[in-house]
Amino acid sequence: MIIVLRHGTSQQEVDEIVDRLKKLGFGAHISKGTERTIIGAIGDERQVNLEEKIGVLPFVEKVIPILAPYKLTSREFRLEDSVIEVGKVPIGPGKFVVMAGPCAVESEKQLMETANRVKEAGAMILRAGAFKPRTSPYSFQGLGEKGLKILAKAREETGMPIVTEALGIEELPLVNEYADMIQIGARNMQNFRLLEAAGRLRKPILLKRGMMSTVDELLMSAEYILSQGNYNVVLCERGIRTFESATRNTLDLSCVPLVKKQSHLPIVVDPSHGTGRSELVPAMSFAALAAGADGLLIEVHPNPIEALSDGPQSQDPAQFSSMMAELKKIAGLKGRAM
Amino acid sequence: MIIVLRHGTSQQEVDEIVDRLKKLGFGAHISKGTERTIIGAIGDERQVNLEEKIGVLPFVEKVIPILAPYKLTSREFRLEDSVIEVGKVPIGPGKFVVMAGPCAVESEKQLMETANRVKEAGAMILRAGAFKPRTSPYSFQGLGEKGLKILAKAREETGMPIVTEALGIEELPLVNEYADMIQIGARNMQNFRLLEAAGRLRKPILLKRGMMSTVDELLMSAEYILSQGNYNVVLCERGIRTFESATRNTLDLSCVPLVKKQSHLPIVVDPSHGTGRSELVPAMSFAALAAGADGLLIEVHPNPIEALSDGPQSQDPAQFSSMMAELKKIAGLKGRAM
Amino acid sequence: MIIVLRHGTSQQEVDEIVDRLKKLGFGAHISKGTERTIIGAIGDERQVNLEEKIGVLPFVEKVIPILAPYKLTSREFRLEDSVIEVGKVPIGPGKFVVMAGPCAVESEKQLMETANRVKEAGAMILRAGAFKPRTSPYSFQGLGEKGLKILAKAREETGMPIVTEALGIEELPLVNEYADMIQIGARNMQNFRLLEAAGRLRKPILLKRGMMSTVDELLMSAEYILSQGNYNVVLCERGIRTFESATRNTLDLSCVPLVKKQSHLPIVVDPSHGTGRSELVPAMSFAALAAGADGLLIEVHPNPIEALSDGPQSQDPAQFSSMMAELKKIAGLKGRAM
Amino acid sequence: MIIVLRHGTSQQEVDEIVDRLKKLGFGAHISKGTERTIIGAIGDERQVNLEEKIGVLPFVEKVIPILAPYKLTSREFRLEDSVIEVGKVPIGPGKFVVMAGPCAVESEKQLMETANRVKEAGAMILRAGAFKPRTSPYSFQGLGEKGLKILAKAREETGMPIVTEALGIEELPLVNEYADMIQIGARNMQNFRLLEAAGRLRKPILLKRGMMSTVDELLMSAEYILSQGNYNVVLCERGIRTFESATRNTLDLSCVPLVKKQSHLPIVVDPSHGTGRSELVPAMSFAALAAGADGLLIEVHPNPIEALSDGPQSQDPAQFSSMMAELKKIAGLKGRAM
Repeated sequence: MIIVLRHGTSQQEVDEIVDRLKKLGFGAHISKGTERTIIGAIGDERQVNLEEKIGVLPFVEKVIPILAPYKLTSREFRLEDSVIEVGKVPIGPGKFVVMAGPCAVESEKQLMETANRVKEAGAMILRAGAFKPRTSPYSFQGLGEKGLKILAKAREETGMPIVTEALGIEELPLVNEYADMIQIGARNMQNFRLLEAAGRLRKPILLKRGMMSTVDELLMSAEYILSQGNYNVVLCERGIRTFESATRNTLDLSCVPLVKKQSHLPIVVDPSHGTGRSELVPAMSFAALAAGADGLLIEVHPNPIEALSDGPQSQDPAQFSSMMAELKKIAGLKGRAM
Repeated sequence: MIIVLRHGTSQQEVDEIVDRLKKLGFGAHISKGTERTIIGAIGDERQVNLEEKIGVLPFVEKVIPILAPYKLTSREFRLEDSVIEVGKVPIGPGKFVVMAGPCAVESEKQLMETANRVKEAGAMILRAGAFKPRTSPYSFQGLGEKGLKILAKAREETGMPIVTEALGIEELPLVNEYADMIQIGARNMQNFRLLEAAGRLRKPILLKRGMMSTVDELLMSAEYILSQGNYNVVLCERGIRTFESATRNTLDLSCVPLVKKQSHLPIVVDPSHGTGRSELVPAMSFAALAAGADGLLIEVHPNPIEALSDGPQSQDPAQFSSMMAELKKIAGLKGRAM
Repeated sequence: MIIVLRHGTSQQEVDEIVDRLKKLGFGAHISKGTERTIIGAIGDERQVNLEEKIGVLPFVEKVIPILAPYKLTSREFRLEDSVIEVGKVPIGPGKFVVMAGPCAVESEKQLMETANRVKEAGAMILRAGAFKPRTSPYSFQGLGEKGLKILAKAREETGMPIVTEALGIEELPLVNEYADMIQIGARNMQNFRLLEAAGRLRKPILLKRGMMSTVDELLMSAEYILSQGNYNVVLCERGIRTFESATRNTLDLSCVPLVKKQSHLPIVVDPSHGTGRSELVPAMSFAALAAGADGLLIEVHPNPIEALSDGPQSQDPAQFSSMMAELKKIAGLKGRAM
Repeated sequence: MIIVLRHGTSQQEVDEIVDRLKKLGFGAHISKGTERTIIGAIGDERQVNLEEKIGVLPFVEKVIPILAPYKLTSREFRLEDSVIEVGKVPIGPGKFVVMAGPCAVESEKQLMETANRVKEAGAMILRAGAFKPRTSPYSFQGLGEKGLKILAKAREETGMPIVTEALGIEELPLVNEYADMIQIGARNMQNFRLLEAAGRLRKPILLKRGMMSTVDELLMSAEYILSQGNYNVVLCERGIRTFESATRNTLDLSCVPLVKKQSHLPIVVDPSHGTGRSELVPAMSFAALAAGADGLLIEVHPNPIEALSDGPQSQDPAQFSSMMAELKKIAGLKGRAM
């Protein structure tokens, strides 16, 4: 932690900071520049919030953290890429895992048809929501446990593990009973109670980046889960909010190589939510793979025109299938098995 | 709802849309322009998500909603400004209510001292957190129920009602036992399970705008609470996220007159979180009052230098007191009692 | 400047940096922390771009500047608030200067009528564009020199000095001939050639903040002008771009107290562009004054319904007049003459 | 153009709008919904700014444009992809053109060495700045004409055409004398005077997207150039500004397929500025190609550690060369010659 003092700070004030640091268990290294004095705090800055404890002093101009605030999530904590097993499907280096399915489970017929079609095309994990987060209380909220049961049936029939979302703690045990991987959605990325509860499970968690969250915050939210003992976390980039309105969100693909540098956790990309427009999904899927992502989350609906939610961003099985064919070629080049 | 068709759409396709609209209970009004055909869907668009159901058709270029998607929250639903009673303190027209206190309850001594000082200066509601949302799992998380008990004692001693945050459903009953108004924080603005649960109470809810949420989404989240029967909602602007990094957030004061036009609910402003810098708090507090806000949420700490959280944005009692004196003058001009 | 080294940097590499700093004229102060070594560069970091010269070294993790990169613009360079004289109207402490007029000069009749009406209501400077920046090449581009002549006539008749925009260097001499203050628009805030040319004049410059520029960048653009010898700069906040689409821009009023802390230059606010909605202009004008702004830039049109540009955000003379009456009351409280 | 009237608008007011539209040369189509009346304006809305002329009426709630405001730039104007010839290098379908070179020309030795190295690795166009836009007036501003002469020499030696930036109108003739393609930088994307002047040339223009600009605005700025008769425009995505601070900008790759849908102009990507971090450049280059871009703009410096500008985002020749090898493989798959 670097502490920058205001112009004209007295020696007495410098001493006060050094003293304060000592009480907090830190050493101090003082450096007097031409216009400013700077103090380096020496110690483990992740244990104490120095930014608050020192930044509040009136003669401190700013406090600059040096270390990323996460530990277990960091590349320094674990040098090799983590491999997360979802059912029997490993997500991690050397693989490119496509998770596909409808936005929401609407009926057994709809899900079975989609599951069979995406499996044929090469998808390895089935995705669909039984509990849906909707901005309007008047929108379709999902089939609930009935949806989970249909998902379980689809797993039985196709052999694909399933990933589905839990919206709150109270439904977590139920979702945990059925799902092979539990999704925590973008709007819940900083629902700290839900993160803690997910951390107490041992089931893989698919943690989506909030539309307002930095990569550092995404990794901090993952840290909430890991710090409770659950190391099975897959991150997901799904677009952030910007001033551009031609797409639903702005898919931030540079997040992929950035996360790879900073963390050992796998990261997948959701171009369906990331763009909100099915005609942009193939291009952004190819780009995600080329950028180094470990997989994709794709919305596919047997008949997008009849979908109860997210139709405009869903692909139909034929579009999905032709996209998969091209993905396989690029995956071959990148040394990733699909 | 306006449906814009792609260039070159055939009559048969137009008929298909009209037919589809009819099945969904809508009339259709067709208008052929120079380059595009446009269809007006006639019916209550808030009952059916036409954007999804029609937007998904391949010959539809876009679907444009005409009505705001909220009802109970809207100014059209209720023309007069709502007055929300917190304890015996009314928030609404003709009043300007300052809620003040430390970010977190740290100890009985700290809270009592703050409570007495802010009351002296004219604050009407006491604020402080017992459960704290923190981006890091390693930061101070609040005193929990012990903090709530200290808050109750401060209410007893000072007569001020208290507002404090609930982070999740599981602690909502406990917070409800102690608080006069329950805060739902910015990160939980779209925690729909928590909104629903808050809607089943009858206690006033202080709903903070998410840092990446539009005003329309804020009103939709309020609608979640009202739609469950709890009409006691106070909105709070606390800054949104932008590229500007000199302030912690960008306080969006134009949100105040905008909410006033679109909704009957009161709106207060939190310049402490909105700027993150205590030296900017007075200017932004004056501005909020001048812009028409119904009140403020201000962080005050008896000794910001020793605060366990948010010290840099907290005012000390003397700063707060002098700010209150100037606020009273402006409130007088604006016809608002403090 | 603080240089943070990567984990595991060798002594030889540290020496290489120290050596490099020495050649650039800087001293070095080394501080070895628990996990990182940090070097403080001692010298005038505004003369050399260390962020580039040192940040490029492979064993450097990041370079953190300590000083703001502007000098002449800074509060440290000049402690007292600057007063800029526009014609005979001073902008600065103790005053609140309202500049009003139509978006564009459309005709002599339109301008004269507006000028007389805004003067009656208390405006002190007349604003109107003769050269208009338009996103579409097919939109009305302004009357050019004819517009400037009409402006000069309005000045003669009303005695009000005039502020009008120059879009490029080639029209700067012409605008300089007629205007009392030359506006550089938001889209030109980083048109460095235009800034340099404006710096070679001695006429007051109204520099608008770019819609995606930080406050630091605004001050750097001002520095371009001051560094050429023209110290007559008035800054203008006119809204930044965010994800919120209910307003044309998000007016960042916290920019006002922030600029006051960091710079001696006056700052005015343009709520007409900042909100894009005339019904929000009064509330945001009151807020700007309360936040400490030195003045306002307001669009007024005798008949907004017939305006050739920006009608929706223009006030009519009656609205303007009633807003001015309320502004005067608040100005009184704030010790600012109008 | 769709005109949405406020709740409760009278028949007389509807008539007033229809009348007004008629005078502006538009037909009107009235559609009365359950809660709102809507009027479709029939005519060429690109000729008249109805949003301003009608939106200003007090009983109009909003005006919604239906057509994109550009013509010559649009895919509807020209169905096939345009091919732009830079020297003898075509940019367009079936090709993938890498333009590489240092941020700035620093010396003959530096440029010659870079030119030879990037040519060896497969680059087809040489890029380097002689006039540099710098946020600080105290930073290195480029070698000016001397730099252009060095560029010309490098072209002679290597046979590669050159692309370099013009910052203002006054240097445009000079740059035009030397360059094969003239760059208009991000900060100048809405410098309308410069766009007009570039439109009067016939030389290819590389137009970079502003960091605050939507894709629609980028296409409108291109329209400024095309509307003056210069159809030789190549667009460039170089990152937009968001709240994420770990990268210099957020590279918006979904811009690539979006532009391809809406326009016939080629689009290239600049991952060096888009990320600001050389270690992220390869991943984002692969992603850009996979997303359908027509080429790249890459900063390469023979010795990034000694670069006078943008060192941290420059690749060295070895990194560049190995990246080119992998790009060629992906280009093969995508049917693009390199």
